[in-house]
Formats: sequence, C-alpha cells, structure tokens
Amino acid sequence: MTSIDLNADLGEGFGRWRLTDDERLLAVVSSANVACGFHAGDAATMRRVCELAAECGVTIGAQVSYRDLAGFGRRAMDVPPAELAAEVAYQIGALEVFARAAGARVGYVKPHGALYNRVVRDEEQAAAVVDGVRLADSALPVLGLPGSRLLARARACGLPTVTEAFADRAYTDEGTLVPRGQDGAVVTDPEAVVARSLELARDGAVTARSGARVAVRARSLCLHGDTPGAVELARRVRERLTASGVRVEAFA
Amino acid sequence: MTSIDLNADLGEGFGRWRLTDDERLLAVVSSANVACGFHAGDAATMRRVCELAAECGVTIGAQVSYRDLAGFGRRAMDVPPAELAAEVAYQIGALEVFARAAGARVGYVKPHGALYNRVVRDEEQAAAVVDGVRLADSALPVLGLPGSRLLARARACGLPTVTEAFADRAYTDEGTLVPRGQDGAVVTDPEAVVARSLELARDGAVTARSGARVAVRARSLCLHGDTPGAVELARRVRERLTASGVRVEAFA
Amino acid sequence: MTSIDLNADLGEGFGRWRLTDDERLLAVVSSANVACGFHAGDAATMRRVCELAAECGVTIGAQVSYRDLAGFGRRAMDVPPAELAAEVAYQIGALEVFARAAGARVGYVKPHGALYNRVVRDEEQAAAVVDGVRLADSALPVLGLPGSRLLARARACGLPTVTEAFADRAYTDEGTLVPRGQDGAVVTDPEAVVARSLELARDGAVTARSGARVAVRARSLCLHGDTPGAVELARRVRERLTASGVRVEAFA
Amino acid sequence: MTSIDLNADLGEGFGRWRLTDDERLLAVVSSANVACGFHAGDAATMRRVCELAAECGVTIGAQVSYRDLAGFGRRAMDVPPAELAAEVAYQIGALEVFARAAGARVGYVKPHGALYNRVVRDEEQAAAVVDGVRLADSALPVLGLPGSRLLARARACGLPTVTEAFADRAYTDEGTLVPRGQDGAVVTDPEAVVARSLELARDGAVTARSGARVAVRARSLCLHGDTPGAVELARRVRERLTASGVRVEAFA
Repeated sequence: MTSIDLNADLGEGFGRWRLTDDERLLAVVSSANVACGFHAGDAATMRRVCELAAECGVTIGAQVSYRDLAGFGRRAMDVPPAELAAEVAYQIGALEVFARAAGARVGYVKPHGALYNRVVRDEEQAAAVVDGVRLADSALPVLGLPGSRLLARARACGLPTVTEAFADRAYTDEGTLVPRGQDGAVVTDPEAVVARSLELARDGAVTARSGARVAVRARSLCLHGDTPGAVELARRVRERLTASGVRVEAFA
Repeated sequence: MTSIDLNADLGEGFGRWRLTDDERLLAVVSSANVACGFHAGDAATMRRVCELAAECGVTIGAQVSYRDLAGFGRRAMDVPPAELAAEVAYQIGALEVFARAAGARVGYVKPHGALYNRVVRDEEQAAAVVDGVRLADSALPVLGLPGSRLLARARACGLPTVTEAFADRAYTDEGTLVPRGQDGAVVTDPEAVVARSLELARDGAVTARSGARVAVRARSLCLHGDTPGAVELARRVRERLTASGVRVEAFA
Repeated sequence: MTSIDLNADLGEGFGRWRLTDDERLLAVVSSANVACGFHAGDAATMRRVCELAAECGVTIGAQVSYRDLAGFGRRAMDVPPAELAAEVAYQIGALEVFARAAGARVGYVKPHGALYNRVVRDEEQAAAVVDGVRLADSALPVLGLPGSRLLARARACGLPTVTEAFADRAYTDEGTLVPRGQDGAVVTDPEAVVARSLELARDGAVTARSGARVAVRARSLCLHGDTPGAVELARRVRERLTASGVRVEAFA
Repeated sequence: MTSIDLNADLGEGFGRWRLTDDERLLAVVSSANVACGFHAGDAATMRRVCELAAECGVTIGAQVSYRDLAGFGRRAMDVPPAELAAEVAYQIGALEVFARAAGARVGYVKPHGALYNRVVRDEEQAAAVVDGVRLADSALPVLGLPGSRLLARARACGLPTVTEAFADRAYTDEGTLVPRGQDGAVVTDPEAVVARSLELARDGAVTARSGARVAVRARSLCLHGDTPGAVELARRVRERLTASGVRVEAFA
C-alpha cells in the first residue's frame, strides 16, 4: 500500500496576530512545520501547537527562517554562514523544548519562505542550514525540494532527506517547479489540485504544463493553510488520497 | 575544605555590539550566565560562549529575560504568566542546543535584570518562571536570591535551588540587600569587595551596613564583568578565595 | 447642533498580519488612531492608512505604544522616563512623514494599550508621554481618559486635551470606568452600545451600573474594530448619532 | 578657497550598547550620519546625538538601513520596493522629530551598510530609496557613491545629490573603489590616509592602486569612528585639511 506524508505550515501567528487555522490543519496533515519565532511563532503559540500536534499524532517539524518578522521571512537575506547556522540551531532548540514537553520530539527541519527558495541553489547558505541542523541533532531529517542544494548537502553530511512536491504548482518537463510569476505557475482549480495530489502520491508523477507526464518522486506533499478555503481543500486532498488507497502518514 | 561557586553574566553582546569580556571572565568564574537572545545574546555568540565555557570546564546557565533588547531586560514587564513561562522555556531550549553541541548541558537557570528583581516578590511571575524551567527540564536548578519567591516556588515544585550573594552590595541586618538608590547600597572599594567575598564564602556571613555581622548563606557569588576593571576585580576575588583555602567550583 | 468625534484604532497589522478592517472603519470614524510600529503598524501599512484617511477626511492620530510587538503593547513596562519620552516622539515623527505625504498632518496623540492604562495614574510615565509629545510638536492635542494623570499633565504643559468615553464599558457613579474583570464591566448588547453612544454624545451623560445617571463629558467616543461584528456595530453607532441630529466630526 | 565636507556614522549604539564615540566625532565632522533605529540607534540616543550635533553646528543626516538589528544592517535583503520606500521614509521621519526638537533639520539621507552597497547597482532598490526620501521631503539631498544607481535616480527625480570618497580605500584607474576582499583594498597606514584625504579634498584626485593619478570628485569624505584610533585619525585628517587651506564645512 502506497503512503504519503502531508505537511503544512502551522503556528504562523505572532502575539496578537493569527494566520493559520492550526486546530483544523492538524486534523489533515501528518507533519506540522511549526514556526519557531524568527518569521512568526511566539513561544506560547509554539507550545500550544506542539501540544495539539502531539495529541493528534502529527510529527513536529522546525520551520526555520531568516530573522525577519516584518517581512514574514520572505525577504532573502545575505546572512553570513556562521550566523545563519547558529540561527537555525537556535530555532530548532527553542522548538525542541515544547516538543519534548508535549511528549514528542522535533522530527525534521524545513526552511521557510525566502530561505527555502535560496537554498535551492545557494551552496553556501544550504551548507549553513545543514550545519545548523547538525548542531542541533546529527540525525535530524531535512525536508526540501528534490534537486535542491539543501538536500544534496544534507545527504553529503549524513542527514536523512525528505523530498516534497506541490499539487498546486505547475511543473516543467524536467520535473521542476514553474517559477512563480510565469503564466500558469499556480494551479487554482481545487479539483485539479486534488487530482494532482493523488497523481503525485500514487504514481510519483504529475502532468507537466506541457501536458507531458513527468516523474516527481516526493515522500511528502506540501499543503497550504493560510488562505480562505485552504483548509477545506487540504481536507479534500486527504480524503481523496485515503479513498484511493493511499495511506497518509508521516515519513519519520 | 569550603567551596564556593562564582557566577557572572556572559555573552551579553548582540550582533555587532559587545559588552562582556567573555574570554577573560571564563578564566575566573565557575558558572556562566549566558544571555539567550531576549535581552542580549545573538545565536552565534551563544554558540561561541558555550564552546569556550565547555573548554574551560565552566558550567553553562541560561540567563533568561523579558523580551526587551532595547531596554537590555531592565524594564519590568507585566507579561501574562502563560506567555512568560513559554518565553523562559524558549530561551532555555535555544541555549541547550549550543550547550549540547559543545558537549555540555544547560546546568541551571538564572533570571536577568528586571525579571530577577521582579520574582523576588512577585508570586505570579515567580511561578511562571518556574513553570518555564520545568517545561524545559524538571530537574534544572534555579539560581536566585535567598528568600525570594522564585526560590520558594522552585523548591515547592521540586526543582533544586541555589542561593547567591553579592560582595559588592551592602546588606541590612536582616541579611537582605540594601536597595539600590539608598546611600551606600553599592560597595565600590575593590579591596572591600575582595574581603567581603572571602567573608561570604568562608564564613557564610557579611558585615552589614550597620556594622553588625549578619549570616548570608550563599552557594554562589555573583561577579560583574561589564564595567572597566570588573574582570580584574573578579580575578582578584578568585585569587583571594583560593589563597585562603576556599575552592572555587560550580554547584552543579 | 451637537457634535461628537468617533475614534478607533487602525493599521494594527504588522507585515503579513492583518487585524483591523481599515477601509471599512475609515468610513465610520472621524479620527484614526494609527499604530506607529511599536506594538503594530509596519511602515507600508502606516503609509496606506494615512493615504486612505486623508482621502476620507479622517483626522490622523499617532497611537503610541511601549516597544512590544510580541505583547501587542499590552504588557505594562517600567520604561525610564527619558527613554519613554524619546520613544513617543520617535513614533510621532515616523507617522508624521506619512501624514504629510498624504497631504495631512498628525492631528493628535493617543497612547495604546498598557501605556494608555498606565498613564491614567502613573505621574512619571504620564509626564514622559507629554514630554515626548512636546518634543514632536508643542501644540499637539492629547486624547485620553477624563481625570487621567496624562490629560492633567498635558494641560499643565499647555497641550490641548481631548477626553473620550466608551459606550461599551460600564461606568461607576463617579463617572469612571468599571474595571475590566468586574461583573458587567463590558457592555456586550449591540443595541445598548448604540443607545449609550447617543446618550454620551447628546446628553454628556450615561446610565451607570447602579442605574443612576452620571455625567461623562467626552469630546470623542472610542469605537472598536478588531472583533467580528465590531465594524458593523461602529457603523450603527454612527447612523444612530447622525439620525438623532448629532454631527460626527473630528475635534481638531 | 577649497572646502570639503567630512561625514561619519554616529549614534550607532542600541539601548545598553555603545559603538561610536559620538562626542569626540562631533568635534571633527561637519555632517553626522545618525542611525535611525533599524540597524542601530535607539530613540534616546537619536535625541542626544541630534542635540549635540545642533550645538556643534554639525549637519544631521538620516543614516537609513534595512530593518536588521541582529546583523547591524550588513545583511543585504530583498525588500519589496514599496516596503523599502516606506521603511526609508519612516526612519527619516523619526529622526526629523529629534532634529527639529534640537532646532535643526534633517539635512540629507545616506543609506547604511548593505543597503549602501546594494543601491550602487540595484536599480529597483535605488528607486525605492529615492521614493522613500521623496515621501519625507522632495528636496532632501542624498549622499552616496559617484556613479551609483542611487545618485543617478535621485538626480533624475530632482533630488540634490552629494558624492563622497574614502581616503582609506584603494581606487581603480577608473576612479571606482577596489572591492573589499581584494589585496590592498583598505589603506591602513594613518599617514597615507591623511595624505589621501588632502589629495581628494584639494585636488579632486587620488593615487590609484596602479600608481596612476585618477580624478575622484567628491563633495564629502567619509571618515570612520567605530575602531580604536579611528577618532584620532579623523581628527588628524581634519587638522591636515585645515592647515593646508581646505575649509571643512557641510555641503548643505
């Protein structure tokens, strides 16, 4: 029986502000990318999300970011590698407290926003993120894009790696994401997203923008929870997968 | 043979700014109160201080603070208990990463600045700090003022407690600190500070402002490192203690 | 013809996070308390809100706060007076840029959250806020609670003062607010809020918790915009006032 | 008689931390680049520096930066143009309060650190900085590198521009700076720095790394004040200039 992990960003409020519907998302995903305070995620929210995730049996992941509350971690930053590595480790450690207090552990690390995009190609920052992960735990899985420098570096350093795919993004014939900003980069039709989720999970393939079928091997699908209707769509994805005989379960 | 712990605040820079002479202080103290990012202490500095402390055999403590970089943690804040507890745990967890990476552990927790003063009498915040410590580790010692609500609460919750005294502060006949702002609250003569350190460490007593001898039982002496001549004075304290047969060693 | 000012907090998002429905509120109020970056309010939001307010003919006020994004300015802080005064002036100056760029000016200052509550009774912080306002502009009106130390100090220093009342809060027989936390402190029935708004605006009086009629002379009513239904309620208040012959207009 | 402006960064502490020796620098420079709170510069320090500058007759400039206290504004950031423009205006406005309170005005704008370097070539961010300056004041001079996109854009938008040169940096035969990191990029010999200052100020030329004489027309020289001996060197530069008949005066 085929299985797939579903991951989403959670706990992305800060103090008075809320963004993600954490309770409802935790009923859908198998892995929760929990914001660690640098782009979002105050300490009390981190604690609460960890408790809820542990109750739901959802794996807790550290969603590490540039230090950028004002830009929500979406501003790429030239952080010197030693500083970036330490900042990544700092965030993982902070989350680990709440994961342990909830009877769980941090099960993986996934960079957020601009850092996620940067380490697809930036060797230096990819290495810094991996260094930060290893400072925290030399056996902690790293979640990221297939073909990214991040995963290559993590593998080279002995860290487990987990690839992810996006059912709501268009793919090229090479199996890479069509860059945002290009026509058709984002798939907006809910039914198409659901169908592509199943395609990715069951077949390890997806229909590229050209119409061709292209292999995209991913152990996890990334769902979104910060827009109206997003949680409902995520729920539909999970139902379709389950109904089609794909087991939703964390990779850890 | 009598022994005493010497603790001091370290790593109290932030990014480009430096404050404490960490290298020289680590040659003097047996316990390092490491800033954890809320009043001072960027991640790279935390890492470096932990590495140095581990090399020197100095115990690493989490110096937890209100979230207040602009005020250096010296602005008392009415933080709701649940938020304060989570913020304390967050800081301990972040430091623990660097302590472990250096082959050590966080050995104790000491509140900083306005939080330190607040939990002497504020039952609610004292309880919140203790809750935060227990979230991180239910057996982590808490360092503070004898008679403080903080230590009372920590004991009541089963946490080890460690009392500290200040050789450069005047004491009342009741063995409590003369409040800053009152005449003679601070002892500025270096030789007097050295002599009082020995008095406190060897005799468990100190000459009060009135001239009377008063018992002050402390397992640790707090030294300062952020003013000109402070490190030199700390060094003299250690030498006098050692020369007088008092062993300087961490309490842990 | 009687007139009253209606004020509400606006621009209380930060970066990715939104809180207040600024567009809709600007159609209701005559004065906008714009967050200035210390408890909420990123620069781009401040700019946008000022532009919208200027278009709508709404007076722009500086909603100054403690430096506390994580606590949304709701954590009372012991900020030294000189620092508090400078922080208040800093926020006013930052907002003034956007007000001027929109063809307007900052028309008044209103403290936010914990600072608002603190300067009701704290003489030192009240004086610091007034010092900060005067650094920015020696003729800038201060909006606050009748009987507060803030308004007394502002008057004594020659600043214009504006009193405000709350239609959704219970009053004592002395015309002061029933403290939050006490039974019935908050009026939740929308129709009661509307009726009390009219009572306050037209009669300068309100029915106290005891049932007695008590004089509450306020030049401005504070409306809320950060809860579901709040904007709709604010709109109803304005309609009732207008329909009853009370003109809604800024005090400036 | 030839004249030259001398500018330096001031007020680059934050809260408890100090960096620049503001008092002594103000006796040397004619223009003070005052940190505005985004990379350094708390409100109380901004106030104090403005008061001192006004007393000394030194022109106050807004040293605007990316929002990056942890990195001291040295981390290049991909800030969306509308956000960057607003952030620049915010900083200028905040400083203007303290300049006016001291009886002066903000006389110019100079980007700091990574932003300074970025707008040499980045058209989009250069335009955003210029937009931010114009939001604050449509006639405010911009200080920067000759040939930079920043100055080109400022000129195109009708803002006065001021060019600066660096006596402690090597120049290419094209009159541009030898990039940091290359051999000999920084001139460390104090006497050479003094001689090159005079060369730049009096002759509008400097000896390039190749030994050739190259024209570098700058209305201002940038001095540094954040390293040991830097203030003393700055003082020597000023003395040599004055002794050689070059008048030191602000460009404004």
